[in-house]
Amino acid sequence: MRTQIENVQPKDIETKSFEIITRELNGRTFENNTELIVKRCIHTSADFDYADNLCFSDDVVAKAMEAIRGGASIVTDTNMAKAGINKVSLGKYGGQVHCFMSDEDVAAAAKESGMTRASESMKKAAAMGEPFIYAIGNAPTALITLYDLMEEGKVDPLLIIGAPVGFVNVVQSKELIMSTSVPYIVPKGRKGGSNIAACIVNAILYMMNNDRHYWK
Amino acid sequence: MRTQIENVQPKDIETKSFEIITRELNGRTFENNTELIVKRCIHTSADFDYADNLCFSDDVVAKAMEAIRGGASIVTDTNMAKAGINKVSLGKYGGQVHCFMSDEDVAAAAKESGMTRASESMKKAAAMGEPFIYAIGNAPTALITLYDLMEEGKVDPLLIIGAPVGFVNVVQSKELIMSTSVPYIVPKGRKGGSNIAACIVNAILYMMNNDRHYWK
Repeated sequence: MRTQIENVQPKDIETKSFEIITRELNGRTFENNTELIVKRCIHTSADFDYADNLCFSDDVVAKAMEAIRGGASIVTDTNMAKAGINKVSLGKYGGQVHCFMSDEDVAAAAKESGMTRASESMKKAAAMGEPFIYAIGNAPTALITLYDLMEEGKVDPLLIIGAPVGFVNVVQSKELIMSTSVPYIVPKGRKGGSNIAACIVNAILYMMNNDRHYWK
Repeated sequence: MRTQIENVQPKDIETKSFEIITRELNGRTFENNTELIVKRCIHTSADFDYADNLCFSDDVVAKAMEAIRGGASIVTDTNMAKAGINKVSLGKYGGQVHCFMSDEDVAAAAKESGMTRASESMKKAAAMGEPFIYAIGNAPTALITLYDLMEEGKVDPLLIIGAPVGFVNVVQSKELIMSTSVPYIVPKGRKGGSNIAACIVNAILYMMNNDRHYWK
């Protein structure tokens, strides 16, 4: 059994993984700098559905890079996504990652309103008045609240990465976001997750830095 | 669009999700308390492949519960999995979650040995001499090193959750672990991830606590 392990140097593992993904994508092409995002989602999940389900608004990758270059911070709905986002790469431009899900005021507001903590954490972020990138990897209610806040003119996201996962209102919440004029990156359908939200952010950062994680 | 959102109370979202998963599993049954683990992996990923790819060693769920009840701590290879594991539930029994991936001594050892930081973090854990549960959600090299250490008699894991994801040595590293007598839970094939490793731990904790996340 042990002999079946390929001898690959640590620095070459990711390169080789991307070569395998590229080969299995069998010549498919992706527009406007979205290729690395698609491939990184597949790399993170080993799920080739991401070659088909990822939806991008017009020029979203350029807009995302511009926002990050301008020092934008990221708000996410899970501590897992916060853990997964490359904070060193983001920090080079001045941005931070916030997750308000465990904040006491958010828990108290959720108890009072009967809404989810994810909803309340979006309201908290919106009330801060700073233009954020939103990276949602768990709760459709976060996307629904962002939609409502946008409708009310209370938030104007620089970008929404809308990647909640699951079975209740997930599909619908993504469609809602895609019906607006906000810049978005959304894996349509049920799939997504904290890992997907984080890796989409990282793919953009790695393209910007043109660093060792940046492969075609 | 907004009208297509179902009105579901926050406390009911997870229950309803599990009902949908159960319905779509179409009467399939799973043995020996593995059902909730399978369903929680599907809940976390919206990927029904987990109904087919999860492999369990004999009585592994009972053994995992016994280990946790005995105060076992968990070693993981990613800070995302560490963020995702329910540390309050685990802490009730005395266990903690460790991730040594960002430790300076691990980085230094990896630089010297030419092995991955994941490998070195497994060696560090083994050298601590405490019997751990290992929850691997990223690096096949962590599983390979655990295998080598087991062969050398240098580690005796209470349980290995072997859920690295990807394309280089992932399939083989899982097969290696399943060739041993260690208690294991492994999604065979390429799929897995930090989210999957964390949710397998959480599924076991929720069964033990019989808490609000515990659904059939």
